[in-house]
Amino acid sequence: MIVVMSSGATPEQVEHVIERLHEAGFREQVSTGEERTVIGVIGTGITPELGERLEMLPGVERTHRISKPYKLASRDFKPVDTTVQVRDLAIGGDEFVVMAGPCSVETREQVLETAHRAKAAGARVLRGGAYKPRTSPYSFQGLGEQGLEFLSEAREVTGLPIITEVLDPGDVELVARHTDILQLGTRNMQNFPLLRAVGAEQKPVLLKRGMAATIEEWLMAAEYILHAGNPNVILCERGIRTFETAARNTLDLSAVPIVKRLSHLPVIADPSHGTGKWYLVPSMALAAAAVGADGLLIEVHPNPDAALSDGPQSLNLDNFDALMGELRKITEAVGRTLSDGRVASSPAGR
Amino acid sequence: MIVVMSSGATPEQVEHVIERLHEAGFREQVSTGEERTVIGVIGTGITPELGERLEMLPGVERTHRISKPYKLASRDFKPVDTTVQVRDLAIGGDEFVVMAGPCSVETREQVLETAHRAKAAGARVLRGGAYKPRTSPYSFQGLGEQGLEFLSEAREVTGLPIITEVLDPGDVELVARHTDILQLGTRNMQNFPLLRAVGAEQKPVLLKRGMAATIEEWLMAAEYILHAGNPNVILCERGIRTFETAARNTLDLSAVPIVKRLSHLPVIADPSHGTGKWYLVPSMALAAAAVGADGLLIEVHPNPDAALSDGPQSLNLDNFDALMGELRKITEAVGRTLSDGRVASSPAGR
Amino acid sequence: MIVVMSSGATPEQVEHVIERLHEAGFREQVSTGEERTVIGVIGTGITPELGERLEMLPGVERTHRISKPYKLASRDFKPVDTTVQVRDLAIGGDEFVVMAGPCSVETREQVLETAHRAKAAGARVLRGGAYKPRTSPYSFQGLGEQGLEFLSEAREVTGLPIITEVLDPGDVELVARHTDILQLGTRNMQNFPLLRAVGAEQKPVLLKRGMAATIEEWLMAAEYILHAGNPNVILCERGIRTFETAARNTLDLSAVPIVKRLSHLPVIADPSHGTGKWYLVPSMALAAAAVGADGLLIEVHPNPDAALSDGPQSLNLDNFDALMGELRKITEAVGRTLSDGRVASSPAGR
Amino acid sequence: MIVVMSSGATPEQVEHVIERLHEAGFREQVSTGEERTVIGVIGTGITPELGERLEMLPGVERTHRISKPYKLASRDFKPVDTTVQVRDLAIGGDEFVVMAGPCSVETREQVLETAHRAKAAGARVLRGGAYKPRTSPYSFQGLGEQGLEFLSEAREVTGLPIITEVLDPGDVELVARHTDILQLGTRNMQNFPLLRAVGAEQKPVLLKRGMAATIEEWLMAAEYILHAGNPNVILCERGIRTFETAARNTLDLSAVPIVKRLSHLPVIADPSHGTGKWYLVPSMALAAAAVGADGLLIEVHPNPDAALSDGPQSLNLDNFDALMGELRKITEAVGRTLSDGRVASSPAGR
Repeated sequence: MIVVMSSGATPEQVEHVIERLHEAGFREQVSTGEERTVIGVIGTGITPELGERLEMLPGVERTHRISKPYKLASRDFKPVDTTVQVRDLAIGGDEFVVMAGPCSVETREQVLETAHRAKAAGARVLRGGAYKPRTSPYSFQGLGEQGLEFLSEAREVTGLPIITEVLDPGDVELVARHTDILQLGTRNMQNFPLLRAVGAEQKPVLLKRGMAATIEEWLMAAEYILHAGNPNVILCERGIRTFETAARNTLDLSAVPIVKRLSHLPVIADPSHGTGKWYLVPSMALAAAAVGADGLLIEVHPNPDAALSDGPQSLNLDNFDALMGELRKITEAVGRTLSDGRVASSPAGR
Repeated sequence: MIVVMSSGATPEQVEHVIERLHEAGFREQVSTGEERTVIGVIGTGITPELGERLEMLPGVERTHRISKPYKLASRDFKPVDTTVQVRDLAIGGDEFVVMAGPCSVETREQVLETAHRAKAAGARVLRGGAYKPRTSPYSFQGLGEQGLEFLSEAREVTGLPIITEVLDPGDVELVARHTDILQLGTRNMQNFPLLRAVGAEQKPVLLKRGMAATIEEWLMAAEYILHAGNPNVILCERGIRTFETAARNTLDLSAVPIVKRLSHLPVIADPSHGTGKWYLVPSMALAAAAVGADGLLIEVHPNPDAALSDGPQSLNLDNFDALMGELRKITEAVGRTLSDGRVASSPAGR
Repeated sequence: MIVVMSSGATPEQVEHVIERLHEAGFREQVSTGEERTVIGVIGTGITPELGERLEMLPGVERTHRISKPYKLASRDFKPVDTTVQVRDLAIGGDEFVVMAGPCSVETREQVLETAHRAKAAGARVLRGGAYKPRTSPYSFQGLGEQGLEFLSEAREVTGLPIITEVLDPGDVELVARHTDILQLGTRNMQNFPLLRAVGAEQKPVLLKRGMAATIEEWLMAAEYILHAGNPNVILCERGIRTFETAARNTLDLSAVPIVKRLSHLPVIADPSHGTGKWYLVPSMALAAAAVGADGLLIEVHPNPDAALSDGPQSLNLDNFDALMGELRKITEAVGRTLSDGRVASSPAGR
Repeated sequence: MIVVMSSGATPEQVEHVIERLHEAGFREQVSTGEERTVIGVIGTGITPELGERLEMLPGVERTHRISKPYKLASRDFKPVDTTVQVRDLAIGGDEFVVMAGPCSVETREQVLETAHRAKAAGARVLRGGAYKPRTSPYSFQGLGEQGLEFLSEAREVTGLPIITEVLDPGDVELVARHTDILQLGTRNMQNFPLLRAVGAEQKPVLLKRGMAATIEEWLMAAEYILHAGNPNVILCERGIRTFETAARNTLDLSAVPIVKRLSHLPVIADPSHGTGKWYLVPSMALAAAAVGADGLLIEVHPNPDAALSDGPQSLNLDNFDALMGELRKITEAVGRTLSDGRVASSPAGR
């Protein structure tokens, strides 16, 4: 950490900062420039709070953190890529993994039809929401446990592992019993009790970026899960909130190479929530594959026109089929494989 | 709701939209302009999802919602201002209410000293965090239940009602037993299980605006609480995230008059989190009083230089005293009262 | 245009709005819903100001524009894609066009070396700044006319057409004499005198998106140029300003398919300014090709480590070579051609 | 400047950075921490480009600038407040200065009526646009020179100095002949030819903050004008662009105390453009006075309902009168004076 003194700081103020550093167990290196004095803080265990406290001292203009605030999530800590194993599927390896399905689980038929068709098109994981975070209390809130059962049944018959969202720390155990991947939504990226609860499981966790979260905060949220003992974290870029209103969010594809540089964790993209418009999904899906993402989370619906939630961002099954064909050319161009639906997962016994 | 057809929409596509409206129980009014056709949707119970579904139909360019998505929070629904009663204190009335205290409860002495001094300066509510949402798992996470006990003791001896944050739906009952106001933080504005849990209580709830939440989403979050049965909602503007990094957040003071126009709920401002810099707190506090806020939430610390969290945005007790003096001139100028610390609350027996 | 009356609007207020519409030469269609009255405005020539004026009238809550504010730039007006001809090169057609070169023209040697190498790698246009918009008055401001001459010489010897930025309406004539494409930078997207000045030329104009401009405002800026008589507009997405600071800007690739849907104009992407980090340029360049852009604007420098401006976002010539190889696989995957450097432009006589 | 090496940087890479520093005439101070090496750069003339170039070197993770990029605008350079003299009026002193008038000059009568009424209510400067930056080419673009003449006439008869916007470097001389303050709009904050042109005059310049400009960029824009030789710069906060759409912009009042801390220049606020809604103007005007601004720029129109531009954000003359009354209480509370319209400026002979 670097402490920048203001240009008019007195020697006493510099001394006061140094005393505080000594009290806290650190050493200092003072550099007296022509305009101002800079103090380097030396030692281990420099917490985020240290800078905040130093900025309160008289004569301190600001501090700069030198080391990253996350450790376990950092590529410095673990240089090789992490692959997260979901049954017989590896996420973060050579295969580009598409997770597809309806935003909300609505009926048994809807889930089963989508699962069969998505699998045939090359999807490797079935997504579907049973507990839905909805902006309005008057909106459909999800089928809850019954939705989990429909998903489980779809897994039995198709062999596709499933991913579903959990909203409440009190539901983590129940949802983890049913699902293969626990999804944490954008509004819960900094729901710390929930992060700790999924960190106490060993089930893979897909952690969506908060819609106003910096990449550093996102990696800090991953750090919570890793620190709680669960190493199986998959990151998911799903669009950030900006001033532009032509799409629902701005899908920040640069986050993918940035995260790959800073962290060893796999990262996928969600072009459905990232754009909010079905007609933007295919092109952004191709771009995500080209940019280096490890996979996609896509909303597919047998009849999106009637979907109980998020219809406008869902592809219908024919569009999804067509997209998978296009996507295969891109994944090939970047040297990755994409299932063609015939290389099925092995039957998924529990 | 208005459905705008694209300029090349066919009569069949218009017809298809109308059929869907009839199926859903609505009537239509078609207006054929020179460039495009617009369909007005008539009827009650127009849900947010209706627009999403209609936007999936061929030939539909977009939809515009005409009515507001919230009802109970709306001034159309309740034209007169709501005042929220906290023991013998009314929030949202003539009195400008200052809630002050440390970001985190650290020790019994810290809380008691701050409570006495804050009360003497004119604060009417004691704030303090026992459960802290911290960006880093390596940061101090709060004293938990012991913190609640220190706060309760401070209330006993000063008569100041207390406000403290709750993070987990599973903690609501415990926290509600101790506190006078349940605080929902910016990261939890769309934590729907938590909104429902505090909505099931009758204790006043202070709902902070999400750092990337629109005012409409904020009022929708209030609607969740109101809809769950708790009418005692106080809104709190605490800064939004923008591109500017000179302050920690951008305190959006225009949110105060906007909310006052749209809703009947009281609204206060938090200049401490809203700026993240102690030296910006006094001027933004004065501005909040001038703009029409019903009160302030301010971080005050006996020794901010050593605070375990959020030091840089805390005032020390002398600065707080001085601020209250300045503030009194502004509240007078806008025709509101501000306690001078002598008009104490009555002893707070439970 | 739709005028939404507030829920308590009186019949007199509705009547007053209608009178104003009649005065302005429009007709109305009134729809009286259960909650509020909505007035549709019928007629041609609905200006942006009309809505602003109507929103001043008592009882009016807000207005919604139905038609787009731009015409000439709109796909409704011209359904087929526009290709912009730059000498023998067509931008917006089957070929994916890469424009490459240094941010600033520094020396004759630098420009010539970059031009030869960029051409050999497959670049089809040479970029280079002679007039530089610099945040600081203490930064290098460009070589001015001498820079234009170096660029012209590079065109003579390589046959590559050139693109360079113009900042001042008073310089348009001079710059247009030298360059093949006039570049308007992000800070000048709403420099209306400059838009009019380049609109008075017939030289192609590359119009960068303002860093805080909505897509609609960007198309309105294009409309200024088209309306002034110059149909040769190429749009360029170059990143928007968001809260994220890990990259210099957030390159909004979804803008490409959105613009393609709304407008007939060609659109390219600038991953160099869009990220500000050379190590993010290749992956974002691939993503731009996959998402459907018509080309790229890339900073390449023979020795970026010593570049007088924008070094960190420049590729060196070897990296550029490697990128072009990767890019060729993606453009092939999406069915477009990319020059391999052998299919040279014909000698560029003036 | 601090150069942070990446955690795996080699001694050769550190040495390479140091060589480059020596070549550029700087000295270094190397600090080898437990995780990484940090190099302090010592010397004068550290340009913004130096950091950019160093970030290109192998093994460099990032750089932190220690000193501010602006000098003349900085409070370090000039600790006492600057007051800008406009005829007999001092901006930035004890008096809180209200500049009022129509967005666009439309007719002679409109300007004269507004000038008389605004002056009587206590306005000290007359504003009015003759050259208008309009988003649409189909909108009213201003009366040009004739507008300047109407403004001049209004000055003659009322004695109020005038402020009007200039858009084109080629118009600066003409506009400066008529006006007392040259206004640079939000879209031109980084129009560098225009900054240089107004910097070559001695007429006071009101420099609006760019709608997506950081405070540092704003001060850098002021630096351009100061560096070109014109010391008479007044800053104006006019709202920034954020995700919130309830108001047209988010008026960032915290910018006022931040600028006051960083710079000696006077700063005023524009609540009319800052909100875009007339009903938000009065409360935000009061807040601006409370926060410490040196004055206001307010749109007032005799008949805003018919204004040719920006009607919705204009107050009518009665509302303006009422606002001035409220404002007087706030300026008194913060210890400043506000004209009551009787202390007229002396006749303004030229």
